[in-house]
Amino acid sequence: MAARAFSTTAAAKRIETDAFGEIEVPSDKYWGAQTERSRENFKIGGAVARMPEPVVRSFGILKKAAAIVNTDLGVLDPKISAAIQQAATEVSEGKLDDNFPLVIFQTGSGTQSNMNANEVISNRAIEILGGKLGTKTPVHPNDHVNMSQSSNDTFPTVMHIAALTQITDKLLPALQALRDSLKKKSDEFDHIIKIGRTHLQDATPLTLGQEFSGYVAQLDNGIRRVKTASESLRFLAQGGTAVGTGLNTRIGFAEKIAEEITKLTSIQFYTAPNKFEALAAHDAIVEVSGALNTVAASLFKIAQDIRYLGSGPRCGYHELSLPENEPGSSIMPGKVNPTQNEALTMVCTQVFGNNSTITFAGASGQFELNVFKPVLIANLLSSVRLLGDASDSFRIHCVDGIKANEDRIKYLMQQSLMLVTALSPKIGYDKASKIAKNANHKGLTLKESALELGYLTSEEFDDAVKPEEMLGPK
Amino acid sequence: MAARAFSTTAAAKRIETDAFGEIEVPSDKYWGAQTERSRENFKIGGAVARMPEPVVRSFGILKKAAAIVNTDLGVLDPKISAAIQQAATEVSEGKLDDNFPLVIFQTGSGTQSNMNANEVISNRAIEILGGKLGTKTPVHPNDHVNMSQSSNDTFPTVMHIAALTQITDKLLPALQALRDSLKKKSDEFDHIIKIGRTHLQDATPLTLGQEFSGYVAQLDNGIRRVKTASESLRFLAQGGTAVGTGLNTRIGFAEKIAEEITKLTSIQFYTAPNKFEALAAHDAIVEVSGALNTVAASLFKIAQDIRYLGSGPRCGYHELSLPENEPGSSIMPGKVNPTQNEALTMVCTQVFGNNSTITFAGASGQFELNVFKPVLIANLLSSVRLLGDASDSFRIHCVDGIKANEDRIKYLMQQSLMLVTALSPKIGYDKASKIAKNANHKGLTLKESALELGYLTSEEFDDAVKPEEMLGPK
Amino acid sequence: MAARAFSTTAAAKRIETDAFGEIEVPSDKYWGAQTERSRENFKIGGAVARMPEPVVRSFGILKKAAAIVNTDLGVLDPKISAAIQQAATEVSEGKLDDNFPLVIFQTGSGTQSNMNANEVISNRAIEILGGKLGTKTPVHPNDHVNMSQSSNDTFPTVMHIAALTQITDKLLPALQALRDSLKKKSDEFDHIIKIGRTHLQDATPLTLGQEFSGYVAQLDNGIRRVKTASESLRFLAQGGTAVGTGLNTRIGFAEKIAEEITKLTSIQFYTAPNKFEALAAHDAIVEVSGALNTVAASLFKIAQDIRYLGSGPRCGYHELSLPENEPGSSIMPGKVNPTQNEALTMVCTQVFGNNSTITFAGASGQFELNVFKPVLIANLLSSVRLLGDASDSFRIHCVDGIKANEDRIKYLMQQSLMLVTALSPKIGYDKASKIAKNANHKGLTLKESALELGYLTSEEFDDAVKPEEMLGPK
Amino acid sequence: MAARAFSTTAAAKRIETDAFGEIEVPSDKYWGAQTERSRENFKIGGAVARMPEPVVRSFGILKKAAAIVNTDLGVLDPKISAAIQQAATEVSEGKLDDNFPLVIFQTGSGTQSNMNANEVISNRAIEILGGKLGTKTPVHPNDHVNMSQSSNDTFPTVMHIAALTQITDKLLPALQALRDSLKKKSDEFDHIIKIGRTHLQDATPLTLGQEFSGYVAQLDNGIRRVKTASESLRFLAQGGTAVGTGLNTRIGFAEKIAEEITKLTSIQFYTAPNKFEALAAHDAIVEVSGALNTVAASLFKIAQDIRYLGSGPRCGYHELSLPENEPGSSIMPGKVNPTQNEALTMVCTQVFGNNSTITFAGASGQFELNVFKPVLIANLLSSVRLLGDASDSFRIHCVDGIKANEDRIKYLMQQSLMLVTALSPKIGYDKASKIAKNANHKGLTLKESALELGYLTSEEFDDAVKPEEMLGPK
Repeated sequence: MAARAFSTTAAAKRIETDAFGEIEVPSDKYWGAQTERSRENFKIGGAVARMPEPVVRSFGILKKAAAIVNTDLGVLDPKISAAIQQAATEVSEGKLDDNFPLVIFQTGSGTQSNMNANEVISNRAIEILGGKLGTKTPVHPNDHVNMSQSSNDTFPTVMHIAALTQITDKLLPALQALRDSLKKKSDEFDHIIKIGRTHLQDATPLTLGQEFSGYVAQLDNGIRRVKTASESLRFLAQGGTAVGTGLNTRIGFAEKIAEEITKLTSIQFYTAPNKFEALAAHDAIVEVSGALNTVAASLFKIAQDIRYLGSGPRCGYHELSLPENEPGSSIMPGKVNPTQNEALTMVCTQVFGNNSTITFAGASGQFELNVFKPVLIANLLSSVRLLGDASDSFRIHCVDGIKANEDRIKYLMQQSLMLVTALSPKIGYDKASKIAKNANHKGLTLKESALELGYLTSEEFDDAVKPEEMLGPK
Repeated sequence: MAARAFSTTAAAKRIETDAFGEIEVPSDKYWGAQTERSRENFKIGGAVARMPEPVVRSFGILKKAAAIVNTDLGVLDPKISAAIQQAATEVSEGKLDDNFPLVIFQTGSGTQSNMNANEVISNRAIEILGGKLGTKTPVHPNDHVNMSQSSNDTFPTVMHIAALTQITDKLLPALQALRDSLKKKSDEFDHIIKIGRTHLQDATPLTLGQEFSGYVAQLDNGIRRVKTASESLRFLAQGGTAVGTGLNTRIGFAEKIAEEITKLTSIQFYTAPNKFEALAAHDAIVEVSGALNTVAASLFKIAQDIRYLGSGPRCGYHELSLPENEPGSSIMPGKVNPTQNEALTMVCTQVFGNNSTITFAGASGQFELNVFKPVLIANLLSSVRLLGDASDSFRIHCVDGIKANEDRIKYLMQQSLMLVTALSPKIGYDKASKIAKNANHKGLTLKESALELGYLTSEEFDDAVKPEEMLGPK
Repeated sequence: MAARAFSTTAAAKRIETDAFGEIEVPSDKYWGAQTERSRENFKIGGAVARMPEPVVRSFGILKKAAAIVNTDLGVLDPKISAAIQQAATEVSEGKLDDNFPLVIFQTGSGTQSNMNANEVISNRAIEILGGKLGTKTPVHPNDHVNMSQSSNDTFPTVMHIAALTQITDKLLPALQALRDSLKKKSDEFDHIIKIGRTHLQDATPLTLGQEFSGYVAQLDNGIRRVKTASESLRFLAQGGTAVGTGLNTRIGFAEKIAEEITKLTSIQFYTAPNKFEALAAHDAIVEVSGALNTVAASLFKIAQDIRYLGSGPRCGYHELSLPENEPGSSIMPGKVNPTQNEALTMVCTQVFGNNSTITFAGASGQFELNVFKPVLIANLLSSVRLLGDASDSFRIHCVDGIKANEDRIKYLMQQSLMLVTALSPKIGYDKASKIAKNANHKGLTLKESALELGYLTSEEFDDAVKPEEMLGPK
Repeated sequence: MAARAFSTTAAAKRIETDAFGEIEVPSDKYWGAQTERSRENFKIGGAVARMPEPVVRSFGILKKAAAIVNTDLGVLDPKISAAIQQAATEVSEGKLDDNFPLVIFQTGSGTQSNMNANEVISNRAIEILGGKLGTKTPVHPNDHVNMSQSSNDTFPTVMHIAALTQITDKLLPALQALRDSLKKKSDEFDHIIKIGRTHLQDATPLTLGQEFSGYVAQLDNGIRRVKTASESLRFLAQGGTAVGTGLNTRIGFAEKIAEEITKLTSIQFYTAPNKFEALAAHDAIVEVSGALNTVAASLFKIAQDIRYLGSGPRCGYHELSLPENEPGSSIMPGKVNPTQNEALTMVCTQVFGNNSTITFAGASGQFELNVFKPVLIANLLSSVRLLGDASDSFRIHCVDGIKANEDRIKYLMQQSLMLVTALSPKIGYDKASKIAKNANHKGLTLKESALELGYLTSEEFDDAVKPEEMLGPK
């Protein structure tokens, strides 16, 4: 599969070098020796295990910011800086995605992806400046692109940039849109009184709008949870270098680069107050995953309810009709499979599993470094993307088109024996109970039973049993 | 809570000693200095976090076996051995349970529980022999009760004894009984044809007996899974001593003690072929937990199905009536909450969580020792007990009493439009489809629709649409 | 085990009644018929599976608050109310703990525990008023103690009260104390320069104080996370009654009872803005569990680091000496097992598993009710208590007593080849590299190698290689 | 990302039809209307979320087998059958991978992937027979390619084929090769005596070969576990059709197709004895995942041990030297990051998370169908591939090249105070203890301490303290 995605079909090669010596790389790619070695040494998982694109693109943002700050601090030649910035911008815009072939399951510090970025940007910058790829002149991957940085602080920085931009740009809008769609349905269904169900058993009534308002509240809370937890992502490790001390950086570098990244992303970032924690632990990732896990629990419940309420058409609850997006069965009119709910609940189970992975990996830092960084960010980004995409899909292809089957809802409610509760104040508990028992025994409606027993007239019954007066406190 | 369970109300104290010196212990308890120190140093979790009783009792079995083997090997005085055996038997029979106050969250090797056993057995043996508690004479906790042993091999041994005895004596019979109860229902329901449901949508029919046969198959497989996985528990670490080499044991000790434990428990045990693995890893526990996790997944599905099939009575599926064990609602006849299903599904979620704990703890061994032993065995025994108890409870209070609501089942099936499939061969796909669409549109039964459209006579319809001929291959 | 805890040794019995008829209960207990039926019908898990005490006691708080509010609203006789309040206070103070025998694995709404509270409080109130137990006169468990309430809103309310009081009173102080202890160590170790380790490999230096400051930051963040997530617990379901509509309550009841509970607990509570969500989902529990999961990930890392840093004494890192709390080995002076770290890391794995259980159970609500309530709160309270207790234990018995082995730390740092970095600016990369390689090859220190190669004098070396200048940005 | 992988750049379109009407599809692709609708309706997760290739290719196997059996049974025209077989073979060989664009997060029955296979194979068969794509003539996707089948039985069948072939062909050989590599090292290191470590503290000695033999035992057990659990995968759902009854199949079809698949794969398959279980539950997947989870726990421990044993070079254990595969640091000779261990441990955390997903999804079947099929098989195949690939990578790039640092190992062992155990029988416990305490106090070796105290001569010491005699029982 990797072959297909990155096929370089007996392509021309050029020589790249590192401390280990020379190595051939495909001549149509910008990457260098260390990237190539990682490709050889970590054949794990194939193309689907590649480092997620948001990580790659965030490297573009970071490297651009570093070039700007280093030039501002007077340590990087402006001409080289300009070329790096141009190349880094191309990375951040996804134009060089094909140059990032490495997988998640590499070194646990993400060093090889950091070097991948350094190599691609330096070679592209060399190209921009008219130099020759692989010469490291006039732009060196380590000395210039990685200036004042270490993999140990760049990768955690990129983790936070990638996660927060995806959450801000993709997930939160998707959750909000889903919440709004559910709210619209809650309003639309405000007048429809239905039977409540507790323990899956018939209970006292509520409106379908009230039922959906619970879902809206879950989404409102979920959005708040994601936002609150994501505050931890605003703090960047950059400036900690190898072990958190900031050795080989200048005073102020950490703060300036956070400011620059803020400008480039239009998202507020700060330098982390404690860099030792920022390299050695990734509690912020675990925290955010916990919030996503909670959102997934909410969505699972919502999707599950809606598919049961749509079950039928003849032999289920069928209080709702879900939109028909694909042929259910060519012979069975009315058979509409709740496929969006199925996709969404599958996504939720994936998010639950991702959270387990993140928990284990997040707890496993050692001394000055947690070396589970790639698997942490890959799972977090998976959860972010899946929840966002599935929320959109569920909204567009399901929630927006849900219709209430009012006749069915009314029929069920009228069948219910639970409304007998309303008769107790009028005729006493004992007679009310007899009405219910008689109805249950003979398969009658409550009203039929009441009339049969002669405890009330039809008018009295209708006057006393009003589900619409059972919807709130008095 | 600990206070209540082990209150010794300003009780008399006696002095016990260990390498750290003297310490007061309650005079009405047999435990010694090391147990007392652990009580002081690990006030974590209270009484509910106590080392599970099957572990305590298995220590009785092990210590008895060790005394027998050591005497056989000529290294332990027969008189001392006899007293140890008597005391150890009392431990194995639960007579001294109150003397085991330590919690799970102690040292990760379980050393303190091993010492608890050594101290209680030696003091009780001293008492039997007319000596004075706390003198370590004539029965020494280390030199005699722990002879040829190390905590590092006794605790893993006890883990396997405890787990396998509980699985054999409690869990497997409970699963088998539940399986048999479901099988009885499957047979009982063999003649009842009902609508099938896929994607929660009405589908082609099957018998209720067939539906339950799926549950039986799940249990059959589950029993096999537990048995197969439990084979790993037959292998005992005893004889590995401190690091797996067996230093300070005699050749043959490991084999003999496995034989003796086999005799005492009537369950076949063997000495582990590799003691290094047996101390440093607990993959066998992870493996068995995986099997229990699978059983829990099965039971969750079964309990979930049955409670949905019992939902109603008026506004749900209500194909089944579950036994009424407690008042549901004083005013709502027919409201029977599926409380046993609720208890069982809660148990399943506990087992899933226990499996996560076991996975993490099982992966975290270090060099020659895994020091998550107590939390591993506590979670495994929790899963074993809960699955066993809940299977019994679910069987007795739910499955045995399930009744099929045959009228309701028949009514739903007749309502279904899915039976139209049977008309295609006779009148062609197009007309069949029109019948179904007309029925769906006007809320008719298939037959009503067919007659209205005039495609068949009543007799022809009845002759063609026979659910009982849709239950298997031709 | 249940038998032992609640043995009523052929005790006298009295008759209690419910809708199912008469049933015998132990005459020395206050519970009634529904509690007794639950005892019979849910023999699952034994004494260790009992409903956690904080739940029981929170029922005392709630029932007292309800009596006060109902009397204020003029619907409950003041004399009956006073007796209920007195009895409920006894429950909240733990005086009647022995009267709550039910287990977690009962009905998923917790109805039976709610009835247990109603029955115990009514019988105790009857006793206070001079009546006869079991007569339900003059205090009725449903009509008076449960007035304006439903299990479906009381149990969720109690879940939040129990969780937030335990977090506030136990967990947060324990985390803060542990944080302060680590901070003290961080300050104490501020002057000790040591080798850093990334990928477990020797890296550039930092101070031991800096290393511990990372742990302090983790705890600071953890405390913030728990506090933030716990905000969701302030919102109470009370007033939603059976399905969230608040049927059978009076307008204002929900708000008033939240105010009363605030007074009784001195913790701020509010009525939940959406009661449908509050009954049907328990996302707040999932959210808080996510925060505890993150704290556990932090503590796992800290405890793991510290035990590796204390490994040895001769054949490990041994940069730290941990306090010796129990005999390690009678023959091995210096062998101090990191038992507190072991207990703490075991606790962390338990919290991870609890989080899995909570996730699954929290996602599994159905329509108007989540029926996994008991298992949700039991697992959350388990995590809260274990983290609190273990933090205390780890602080008192480990962190407070950690000593830095300064000679060992200095020795290791001097052995490291990583300090060669400091020579590059002075003698150039090539010579620096040769010094390091020569040292590595011959097993020399850097200084020995430098002198042997003649690149610097002893004074020049000492002047250039100053770890104390490698601890931050320039 | 999807765009890049499947870009059809303003490509020509053709019309395909289904029950919903016409829809445009890319003219260079074989898929039809239902595939295209799924592409539109399930934009979830992008290219990395595509249905795994082993599933796609197993559909090729299944459809070929079905064509063969249907022709044998006389219900499928041999000419059509031949074309289907040719097309299906191309699918099974991966030649048409690009024609399977659908993602995991689609309908939970996998229906759309089944239709994708039907559409691609029918169109390709039409092409082979000289027909026109999209006409469904002479080869119809449903009537011919899907003959006697339902998505509800094909997808579960394909799940088992895909999982078992990958386990057999990839995972088991990789685990065996890793086991053999570890065994070779165990043999190679058989003579090297080293200090043991329990609780991370120095303990009694063992050989490095013995330590590695524990890893070999873990792998031996792991291979057995995977094999045993995989037995459940041999049973195929095919023949159950929509709900498990086998409606619309012929008697014998189920058995014949299992035989045919056995022939095509050279792996033994059987028809599932209970088809209801085979559609409605996926316990077999949960079971196998449990085995993989156990293997991951083993590998985590092994990889973790080896990287700690390789830690250093100067400030860690450094008993082992791991191969240097990439530049560690350009300035730090000897700094070799254990990158393969990092990749492998990250893989293990992914497998743990996949197991959580599988558990949740596997427990969530409903009535006659589990609709989490795609997420179940995707996670299982992820675990299978990652464990296989990472085992290979770890073996080739790490284990095969591990070198024991014998001098370091010997030095550490000689430093240890634990060998004092050997002196007790000769000079008594008290003197032995004094030697150890004196050594610990003054930083001496045991021998230096013994000589200083004058308890033994140098010769006597050397004669008594022989680690090589501490490696087993006497």
